[in-house]
Formats: sequence, C-alpha cells, structure tokens
Amino acid sequence: MENRLNHARLVSSLEKLGTIGIREDGKRYRLALSDGDKQARDLLCGWIKDAGLELKIDAIGNIFGLLPGTENGDPVIAGSHIDTVPNAGMFDGCVGVLSGLEALRTIAEKKLPHRRPLAVAAWTNEEGSRFLPGVLGSSVFVGDVTLEKALAARDFSGMTAGAELNRIGYAGTDTLKACAYLEFHVEQGPFLDAEKIEIGVVIGITGLSRWDVTYKGEANHAGTTPMNLRHDPLIAASKLHLAMSAAAAEKNAVFTIGHMEVAPGAVNVVPGTVFFTIDLRSQDRTVLDELHARCEAEIRRCAREVGVEVECVPTDHADPVSFAPRMIEKVERFANLRGLSNRRMGSGAGHDAQVFAPRVPTAMIFVPSIGGKSHCPEELSDMKLVCQGAEILTDCLLELANE
Amino acid sequence: MENRLNHARLVSSLEKLGTIGIREDGKRYRLALSDGDKQARDLLCGWIKDAGLELKIDAIGNIFGLLPGTENGDPVIAGSHIDTVPNAGMFDGCVGVLSGLEALRTIAEKKLPHRRPLAVAAWTNEEGSRFLPGVLGSSVFVGDVTLEKALAARDFSGMTAGAELNRIGYAGTDTLKACAYLEFHVEQGPFLDAEKIEIGVVIGITGLSRWDVTYKGEANHAGTTPMNLRHDPLIAASKLHLAMSAAAAEKNAVFTIGHMEVAPGAVNVVPGTVFFTIDLRSQDRTVLDELHARCEAEIRRCAREVGVEVECVPTDHADPVSFAPRMIEKVERFANLRGLSNRRMGSGAGHDAQVFAPRVPTAMIFVPSIGGKSHCPEELSDMKLVCQGAEILTDCLLELANE
Repeated sequence: MENRLNHARLVSSLEKLGTIGIREDGKRYRLALSDGDKQARDLLCGWIKDAGLELKIDAIGNIFGLLPGTENGDPVIAGSHIDTVPNAGMFDGCVGVLSGLEALRTIAEKKLPHRRPLAVAAWTNEEGSRFLPGVLGSSVFVGDVTLEKALAARDFSGMTAGAELNRIGYAGTDTLKACAYLEFHVEQGPFLDAEKIEIGVVIGITGLSRWDVTYKGEANHAGTTPMNLRHDPLIAASKLHLAMSAAAAEKNAVFTIGHMEVAPGAVNVVPGTVFFTIDLRSQDRTVLDELHARCEAEIRRCAREVGVEVECVPTDHADPVSFAPRMIEKVERFANLRGLSNRRMGSGAGHDAQVFAPRVPTAMIFVPSIGGKSHCPEELSDMKLVCQGAEILTDCLLELANE
Repeated sequence: MENRLNHARLVSSLEKLGTIGIREDGKRYRLALSDGDKQARDLLCGWIKDAGLELKIDAIGNIFGLLPGTENGDPVIAGSHIDTVPNAGMFDGCVGVLSGLEALRTIAEKKLPHRRPLAVAAWTNEEGSRFLPGVLGSSVFVGDVTLEKALAARDFSGMTAGAELNRIGYAGTDTLKACAYLEFHVEQGPFLDAEKIEIGVVIGITGLSRWDVTYKGEANHAGTTPMNLRHDPLIAASKLHLAMSAAAAEKNAVFTIGHMEVAPGAVNVVPGTVFFTIDLRSQDRTVLDELHARCEAEIRRCAREVGVEVECVPTDHADPVSFAPRMIEKVERFANLRGLSNRRMGSGAGHDAQVFAPRVPTAMIFVPSIGGKSHCPEELSDMKLVCQGAEILTDCLLELANE
C-alpha cells in the first residue's frame, strides 16, 4: 500500500521521546514548559528539520512542521501534545504528534501528491497539569483564549506560562491557521481493549458537568439515635450516588463520586457533614443537559428525603463536541479499507480536537489502551496497532489535502 | 408524697460537682483518676459523710455511701459514675450518683423504714476515655474483670490505673456486694425529648457489632470508563449503606457508617479503594444476631454485585442485656403513680447497669436529654425532670429494700 509508514522509525521515535523527562525516581514528569518539556521540544524540532519540514513556532509555543502542497492555503493539521501529567506513561499525546510527523516524513520521502499544505502540530499545555486551563495552546491557536490571558496563567509555584515560555526559548512569532484537523490518540479507556477492536472511530468528545456538594446533617450518638430521627448526610450521599449512577448508566453517560470526606469520622458517631465531588459526562448534548438538570434535582431531593442541608457549587461545565459526519465516515472508510476492526465511540477524555471541531472539519482516531489504563506508568498500547492507526491518519491527511 | 426529695439540694450538688475539672479553656475534662476526678471524689466523700452514711472504698476505687437497714445483708445499690469524657457535659453519670445520694440523704433524714441496707455508688472509669475497657470499676465489683488486670490498664501516656489510684489516694480495702441495682441516667439520645415524654423505662442495654470494611476495586478515568465496566468500591459501599440502614430501621435497630476514606480521591478518578467502619446495635438479641449475619452477607453481596474485593474485620461484639420484667414494671408503676408520662425503651449507650443485669435484679430510669445531645458541653436536661426521676429512683430503692 502506498501510504505505508516506516513502522520501525515511528516506534523508535516514540521510545526516544519516552525517555525524556524521567526523574531520578524513574517516574516520567514532563509537565508543560518544564525542563523536560524543553528537551522533548528540542528533540521534536530536530526531527522536524531533519525531515525537511518548515519549523514554525507561535506565540504560545505551539510547534509546527509544515510540508507545502502544490497550492497555497491553510494546512490540514495532524496534532496532539507532548506535555504529560505527573508520573505519566509514554503514549498519551506523543502517539498523535509522532504519527503526524511520521506521516509527513513518509509523504515527503515518497513525494505523495497533495494540493493543500500539511502540518504536524504539538500543542502547548494540553494536560492542564501545570497551567489551567488545559488545551491551552490549541485554544489560543483558534482564538478561544487570548494570548495575553494564556501567558498570564500561573502554576502552583506562581510562575507564569509566559515567563516559562521565554525561559525555555519557545515563545515564537509564527502564525498559522488550519483548514482541517486530525488527531490520533490512545483511547485512555477500556472499551476497545475489552472488545478486542483495533480502531476507534471517534464521533465526538464528551461534555461534562462537575459539582462540589456538601450535605450538612446532625452528628449524633450512633447507639442512641434511632434511624428515623437521624439526619445522616452520608445516607443522602449514598442515595444520590446510586440514583445518579443508574440514571447515567441508562443513558450511556458516566457519573462519578471520586472524592469524599465524612466528618467527624468516628465509628460511634452518626456523620454530621459529608463533602464530595461529582463528575458527570455524556457524549450527547441532550442527554448531558437532561442528566445535569436531573442531578441538580436529585442532589436536592436526596437532601430533603434525609432532612439535611445542601450546598452545591457547580465547578465545571463543557458542552459535548460532535465531529462532522463526513470526517467520521472518512476514518471509518479507511479503517475498513485496511481491514481493521473498528467501532464508533465517543471520547470520554478531553483533547485538543475539541477546540477545532466547532470551527473546521475535525476527526479523531483511537487505538486501544491495554486494560484501559492511562495517566499512569502502566499506560500501554500495542505498537503494531499504533502504526496501523498512524497509517489511517496518513490516509485521511492525504485525502483531505486533495479534496 | 413521702419520698419527696430536697430538689434544691440535689440541683445545687449537681451544679457544684459540675464545676470540678474545668480546664483553663473552660472545657470540662474529668477523666478517670485524674486530678479533677480526685477533687470530684473528695467532694462526693464529704457529702456522703455529711449525710451520716458509711463511706466505703474498694480496691478499684469504687466509692460507696452505705445506709444500714433494719436487717443485715447486701445493700440495694443506686449507682453511676462521676468520671467524664473529654469536653463533657455535667449530667452524664453525675445525675445518677447525686440522685442516689439525695435519696439516701432524704431516707436518712426522714427515717423512712427499710429492711435491707441501701447504698449509693460511684463506679471507677465508666467512660473508658482514659483506661480501657470502660465500666471498669463495676466490672471488677461483679467479678467480670480481675482486680489485677484492671489495675494494670494503661492510659495513652503509659500510666497504670493502679498507680493513678494510689496517687490520688483512692485505692481502698472495703468489700461489698449488691442484692439489686438501680441506675438513673440521662437518656443521651433524642427519643424522650423528641416525643416530649418525661421518663424512659429502660428495658435493657443494646448489643453491638462492629466491623472495619475495605472494598478494593479499580481506580480508573472518570470520563473514559463506562459504568458497566467499572469496579467502583464506593458504589458497593453505597449499596450496603442503604440496604443495611433499611434493614436496621425495619427491626428498630441502628446501623451507622461513621468513618469513611475514599482513595485515590480525585474528582476525575473512579475510586479504587474505600475503607469504612460499621456500627450495628440492637436491644433484641435475636434481632442483633439476625442483622449481624445479614450484615456480613450484605457486605459480601454488595462486593460481588460490583465486582470488588472485600476485607472485613470484626472489631467489637457485645450481646444485648435485658432487665428483669419485674424491675421494668416497678419503674413503670412508680412513673405512673407520680403521673409522669413514660415509655419503655432500650438504652443505645452502655452503662454500669449492663454488668449487673445478668447477676442481680437491675433497672434503669432515663430522663430526656434536650436535643439528644450528650458527651459534649451542650448536654442538658431539665432539672425538674431530673428531680422527678430521682424520686422514682427513691421509690424503687425503698420498695426493693422492703421486699
């Protein structure tokens, strides 16, 4: 097949990039704009130049490798990120950037015809582990966040993204636009691996609502306070947990209480206060809106039923993003052409692709994460599948560049 | 009525005793065998002698005020305790001891006829806040705990009860036995106050089972892990919490999850491990046995349903104690004779009476705790009801002494 990549080179690049930012304790910390991130950027920029691509860096430090087409215009961009969470694996983000690089290396080497320019991109601070918000570089790129605001973002120690960008020498001056956007990524969830499916055809990115909830009841003697006279906030939390988990499951959404504190916290004292977080996500906007309203109603209903006070603070909300049908069909068609088992699926995690989808034709390709593990050292994907996913990315890039 | 007590003297004694053991920060700390406890003992012994009673102190420091009857034999004892929990109120225990004292003062003054001897008792270390186990003095008195073992009990700083008893001068040599036992106490629960009932006719003391439970599931991405592929230990805990709370409520028992830890504890991570405590109590032995078995089964069923591992460690068990029907009827009859509204009820908390019940005719009388508060500075009971309860105690003491 014409679009066959150099698998060995892609794997070797991934492994090489994976060695950058390892601390003395063996853990991978390559947080955005850190020394480790600078080393990784240096490595990537070297590869971009070695491949004969034009290196471009914009004001928020996004890195591009541009391959001109036979016509002028905005490039089709294949992007992702090379910053990591604390104690990270080596696949998240890097798979997309290095597959895009490998696609462009191959297209350049084989002189595969394409009218529009093509580009690989590594977006700054996707993870949001150091600077908030995440997907910062891509958000500045499309204009969702102003450059000024992004440069002023501060990490826990008070350093600004702008100062750190200057320190590591990645505050550029280039400007670019995308005519279409593709992102190849590991699933970071268990679906594909559990079902032994090779390719995930991503239909969109999940929307999300988060709350901090405090139920305040009445701490009391666990022996002398009968059940019907209790105002136990943990009972309210248990009711809410089961009711909303069932409601989410019914609608293919997810509902999580990930953090919980019970006070005063003694074996013989009925709890007086329970604090917990809620994370609710759905791929479907109607479902998310419905469950969002349902959740706020259930938070209050459970409090009323048990006779506890409620404080409920919304902490985050993002609407679901849907990819264009013709982009979804394109990924699906190439997966089928290559004889790879595939299924349509939403992405439960956020990605740079979410900021492009409302503006330009956007698609994402997933390969399985073994055991669904991600954001941890156990993060692992089959290299053969990574290479096959990269080839579907290449197929899509070329077709989009010639449309 | 003949058995009318000197209400003003009883209230004044209670208030005087309440001033003992107040720290510089205004909080009441009169832990067993502390300097505060010694001062309280000195005060009580003074009152016992002033009332013309024989002062007796046994080897574990239990204090008695004995009023001989017209016949020899073991006394009918009205007892409770004057040690406190940290940051205590002024009613718990003291109400019983000082009402017993007031009863004997009045019986002595009015020369009310009684065949058997009568005694008031203050038992050492009821609370168990300093030395474990609690109800230590009464347990030694009846022979449940050996003197040797009791004297060797150590507090958090390593001091023994024996050394502290010697230090404060309360290691006595007297020996005594009880022919019947009465304990008047504040309810420490919300029942009587909520129902505006004046007297609780206690039918026994609750039995208890406790466990430490750990559910181990699989921490995972809250966005990418669909509900049906989760192994969320907090879901198992919520299921157990609601199932057992309902089962307990149905049987007039109580079920409490008072302490809970959720790990790793991030808003966007499905919990991997949940640790929690269970406290299950019932007044009825059959019910407790049934709910005990049910609880152990439910702990496992909920784990199975969610697909999490379970570690379940029993940490405490005590069978319920029932008082003799004729003793219960006696309290009830005198409450009715005095025109006081009353109801039969179990005691959710432990008391010295529990060690007597298997051996001699035993009864307890409760008066309401306002708002059900106890073991805290807000602990409060209506002094008029305290005095009325003390008079029922006096009625029972005299009838028992003349049977």
